[in-house]
Amino acid sequence: MIVVMKPGCAQQDVDHVVELIRQYGLKDHVIVGTDRTVVAAIGDKRGLDMSAIENAPMVDNMVPILKPYKVASKEVKREPSVIRLPNGATMGGKKFSVIAGPCSVEDEKQLLTTAEAVKKAGAIGLRGGAFKPRTNPYEFQGLGEAGLKLLAKAREVTGLAVCTEVMSIDQMDLVAHYADILQIGTRNMHNFNLLAAAGKTQKPVMLKRGWSAELKEFLLAAEYIMNEGNQQVILCERGIRTHEQYVRNTLPLAIIPAVKNESHLPIVIDPSQGTGHAYMVPSMCKASLAAGADGLLIEVHPDPEHAMTDGAQSITTDTFAKTMEELRRIADAVDREV
Amino acid sequence: MIVVMKPGCAQQDVDHVVELIRQYGLKDHVIVGTDRTVVAAIGDKRGLDMSAIENAPMVDNMVPILKPYKVASKEVKREPSVIRLPNGATMGGKKFSVIAGPCSVEDEKQLLTTAEAVKKAGAIGLRGGAFKPRTNPYEFQGLGEAGLKLLAKAREVTGLAVCTEVMSIDQMDLVAHYADILQIGTRNMHNFNLLAAAGKTQKPVMLKRGWSAELKEFLLAAEYIMNEGNQQVILCERGIRTHEQYVRNTLPLAIIPAVKNESHLPIVIDPSQGTGHAYMVPSMCKASLAAGADGLLIEVHPDPEHAMTDGAQSITTDTFAKTMEELRRIADAVDREV
Amino acid sequence: MIVVMKPGCAQQDVDHVVELIRQYGLKDHVIVGTDRTVVAAIGDKRGLDMSAIENAPMVDNMVPILKPYKVASKEVKREPSVIRLPNGATMGGKKFSVIAGPCSVEDEKQLLTTAEAVKKAGAIGLRGGAFKPRTNPYEFQGLGEAGLKLLAKAREVTGLAVCTEVMSIDQMDLVAHYADILQIGTRNMHNFNLLAAAGKTQKPVMLKRGWSAELKEFLLAAEYIMNEGNQQVILCERGIRTHEQYVRNTLPLAIIPAVKNESHLPIVIDPSQGTGHAYMVPSMCKASLAAGADGLLIEVHPDPEHAMTDGAQSITTDTFAKTMEELRRIADAVDREV
Amino acid sequence: MIVVMKPGCAQQDVDHVVELIRQYGLKDHVIVGTDRTVVAAIGDKRGLDMSAIENAPMVDNMVPILKPYKVASKEVKREPSVIRLPNGATMGGKKFSVIAGPCSVEDEKQLLTTAEAVKKAGAIGLRGGAFKPRTNPYEFQGLGEAGLKLLAKAREVTGLAVCTEVMSIDQMDLVAHYADILQIGTRNMHNFNLLAAAGKTQKPVMLKRGWSAELKEFLLAAEYIMNEGNQQVILCERGIRTHEQYVRNTLPLAIIPAVKNESHLPIVIDPSQGTGHAYMVPSMCKASLAAGADGLLIEVHPDPEHAMTDGAQSITTDTFAKTMEELRRIADAVDREV
Repeated sequence: MIVVMKPGCAQQDVDHVVELIRQYGLKDHVIVGTDRTVVAAIGDKRGLDMSAIENAPMVDNMVPILKPYKVASKEVKREPSVIRLPNGATMGGKKFSVIAGPCSVEDEKQLLTTAEAVKKAGAIGLRGGAFKPRTNPYEFQGLGEAGLKLLAKAREVTGLAVCTEVMSIDQMDLVAHYADILQIGTRNMHNFNLLAAAGKTQKPVMLKRGWSAELKEFLLAAEYIMNEGNQQVILCERGIRTHEQYVRNTLPLAIIPAVKNESHLPIVIDPSQGTGHAYMVPSMCKASLAAGADGLLIEVHPDPEHAMTDGAQSITTDTFAKTMEELRRIADAVDREV
Repeated sequence: MIVVMKPGCAQQDVDHVVELIRQYGLKDHVIVGTDRTVVAAIGDKRGLDMSAIENAPMVDNMVPILKPYKVASKEVKREPSVIRLPNGATMGGKKFSVIAGPCSVEDEKQLLTTAEAVKKAGAIGLRGGAFKPRTNPYEFQGLGEAGLKLLAKAREVTGLAVCTEVMSIDQMDLVAHYADILQIGTRNMHNFNLLAAAGKTQKPVMLKRGWSAELKEFLLAAEYIMNEGNQQVILCERGIRTHEQYVRNTLPLAIIPAVKNESHLPIVIDPSQGTGHAYMVPSMCKASLAAGADGLLIEVHPDPEHAMTDGAQSITTDTFAKTMEELRRIADAVDREV
Repeated sequence: MIVVMKPGCAQQDVDHVVELIRQYGLKDHVIVGTDRTVVAAIGDKRGLDMSAIENAPMVDNMVPILKPYKVASKEVKREPSVIRLPNGATMGGKKFSVIAGPCSVEDEKQLLTTAEAVKKAGAIGLRGGAFKPRTNPYEFQGLGEAGLKLLAKAREVTGLAVCTEVMSIDQMDLVAHYADILQIGTRNMHNFNLLAAAGKTQKPVMLKRGWSAELKEFLLAAEYIMNEGNQQVILCERGIRTHEQYVRNTLPLAIIPAVKNESHLPIVIDPSQGTGHAYMVPSMCKASLAAGADGLLIEVHPDPEHAMTDGAQSITTDTFAKTMEELRRIADAVDREV
Repeated sequence: MIVVMKPGCAQQDVDHVVELIRQYGLKDHVIVGTDRTVVAAIGDKRGLDMSAIENAPMVDNMVPILKPYKVASKEVKREPSVIRLPNGATMGGKKFSVIAGPCSVEDEKQLLTTAEAVKKAGAIGLRGGAFKPRTNPYEFQGLGEAGLKLLAKAREVTGLAVCTEVMSIDQMDLVAHYADILQIGTRNMHNFNLLAAAGKTQKPVMLKRGWSAELKEFLLAAEYIMNEGNQQVILCERGIRTHEQYVRNTLPLAIIPAVKNESHLPIVIDPSQGTGHAYMVPSMCKASLAAGADGLLIEVHPDPEHAMTDGAQSITTDTFAKTMEELRRIADAVDREV
């Protein structure tokens, strides 16, 4: 932590800051510059909120030096993590792993049709919501356990790993019973109790970034899970809120190299939520692979015009199959496998 | 809902859209313009996700007409709602109601000192976190029930109403037992299960806006609570995430006239979270009152330099008392009371 | 400047950074922390782009310490600047100075009607665009010099100071001939050649913040003007672009205390551009005064429904008069004058 | 344009809106829905500001239907435009065209070394700033005409097309004399006079998107150029301002399919400005190609650590050569050429 003093501060102002730093159990180091005096606080300050030093007399501002995350960082584990799923598939590694399926589980026919189609096209997992977080209380809220049972049936038929969302702690056991991957949605990335509960299971967790979370907050959310003993966290970027109107969310693909630079965890992209428009999805799938992502989470529906949720951003099973073909060619070019 | 067709669409494309609209149980109305044909869908579509019509052939885009919220809207109830608290104070109405206190409950001395000071200066409520949502798992997480007991004791001593955060459903009964106002934090505005659980209590709810929630999402979150039978919702603006760096959050005070235009619910401002810097707080308190807000939620600490959380944005009890004096003068000028 | 090394860096990596710092003519200072080594570069680095040190081996990131602006800062001049206008009015100081008028000068009747009404209600200046920056090339682009002549006539009749926009260097002499205050629009805040040209005149400059400019960029834009010898810069906040949809722009009033903390220049608020909706304007006028702004720039039109530009955000002359009355009461309460 | 009335509006309110619409020379069409009445205004309204109807009694809001841009749209020209450069290269079409070079022209050795290296690696154009828009007035402002002469010399030696920025109208003739492509920077996208001046030349224009411009504003800026008779506009995305801190700008690659959907103009990506960090650039180059962009604009420097500007985001000539190899493999996979 660096404390920057205002110009013209007196020795007693600097002394006061030094004293505060020592009260926190840290070592101080004063540097007198040409215009400014700065005081460095040396030691591991993670877990201390020292921000109030900002309010001490003649302090201008404070600059953190240490990154706040630990176990998710490459400092702790340099080699990339590879998450293994019960069906033998992996997330993170040479394989570019695609999980696809409908936004919501609607009925057996819809789910099995989709599952068989995405399996045939090369997906390794099936996504589908049984519990749906809906902004609007008047909209379809999901089939609940009946939906989870349909997902399990689809897994039995196709061998796909099942990825589905858990929205609250009281659903955790139920969802974990049926799912191969527990999805934490963007609206719950900051729901720390839910993160901790997911950390107590032994299931891989698909953690979606909050739509205005900073990268460090995203990695700290992963740490809430990992600190409970569950290291199997897959990061998922699903777009952020900006002033842009031609998309429902802005998809910031530079998070791929950023995560690779900071963390050992795999990162996948959700181009459906990440754009909001079906016609943009194939383009963003290809960009994600070329940029170095570890996989995709895509919304696919056999009849998007009649989807109960998110039809606007769901691609058809035909478009999915065609996109997988295109991804296969790019994968060859970047030494990956689809 | 208005469906805008692409230029050059054929009659069959329009017919297909008309058919989809009828499948949703709505009435269609086609308008042929000079450049574009549009198809209006008439009827109450709240609860239907028709967005997938966007993917029908030759559809350009879709435009919603109805606002999605109902019971929070002025359409349903024109006169402003006034929430009554057990200590006789009100939120919404002529009184500009100030709730103040520390970010976290730390110990008895800190809490009682603060409570007595803010009571004396004119606050009607005491805020203070016993359960703390922390981005960083290594930071102080709150005193839990011990903190709630201290809040109850402070209420007994001062007569202030207690406002404190509930983070998960399993804490709901416990927090509701001690609190006069249940606070739902910004990170949980989209935690729909938690909202519904708060709606099942009979306690007033202080609902903080998600830091990148749209206004309509904010009002829909209120409806999750109200639909369970609890009409006592107080909206709280606490700042949004933008590109601005000189603040921790950008405080958009135009939400005050916007809420007054759309809803009957009271709206209060949190200038502490809303700026992140103590020196900005008095200025934003005064602006909130002048803009027509119903009250404030402020972080006050007897010794911010040693606060365990949010010291940078907490004002001292002295600054609070001085600010209340200034608010009293402005209240006179705008026919309100502090 | 603080250079933060990655964990595990070697002595030679630190030595390389030290060498780079010395090549820039600065003094180095190495601090070995428990987890990280940081290297401080001491000396005035404004004007040097040292960012590339970020790319040196084992450098993690760089942290600037010095603020980049100088002559606009309170470090150089502690007391607030007061700009004097030819009609005797001032910007900055005890008086809360209101400049009002139509978005565009349309014709003599419209302009004089407005000018007389705003003068009577207490405005000190008349705004009105003769050259209009329009996003859409097919829309009304302003009356040009004919508009400037009408503004001069309105000044003659009412005694109001004239504030009008200059869009390009070739218009500078012409606009400066007629205007009392040269307005630089939000789209030109980063048009450095135009800023320098305005700095070569002796006219006060109303500098509008770019709609996504940072505070430091705003103050640096002021310095482009001031460095040419013109110290008469008035800062104007007119709203920023964010994800918010219920406003055309988000009005961040915390910039008022922020500017007061950093700079000696006056700051005024444009609540018309700053919200985009006429019904929000009175509320934001009052909030600006209470927050400590030095004045307002407001769009007023005698018949907004038929305004050629910006009718949606223009208030009527009646609403303006009523708002001025309300401002007068608040001014008393905050020891200011309207 | 659709005018949405408030619930409970009277017939006279609807009649008033109808009258306003007719005053604008448009045809009205009233639709009475179950909850709301809406009035459609039929006819080409581009060029009219009807927004003030929003302020008429009992009007809730207004919804535009027509896109405001014309000549840049696919409605006017369906096949993609291909811009031909004097050296025979093209922008738009099967070829993925890469323009590379230093942020600033610094001296002959730096420029020629870079030009020869990027030519050898497969670039078709050389970028380099002679006039530099600098946020900070104390920083290097470019070599001016001397820089342009060096660019011309590099073209002579390598055959690369020269792309360089023009910042103001008075520089237009000079820059157009030396350049093959006139670059309009992000800070000038809304500088309408400059756009019109570029439209009067016969040179291709590289138009960078304003860092918070909407897509429609970007295309309207292109129309300012095209309306003057110059159809050779190349759109360039260079990142937008958001809350994200791990990048200098957020690069929204979904703009590639969006532009392809709306316009016939080519679109290229600037991954250097678009991220701000050299280590992210190769990843974003590959993603841009896979997503369907028409080319790149990249900052390359032989010695980024000593670059006078933008060193942090400049890649070395070696990294550039390696990236071009990787792009070639991906180009094969997506039926393009590098």
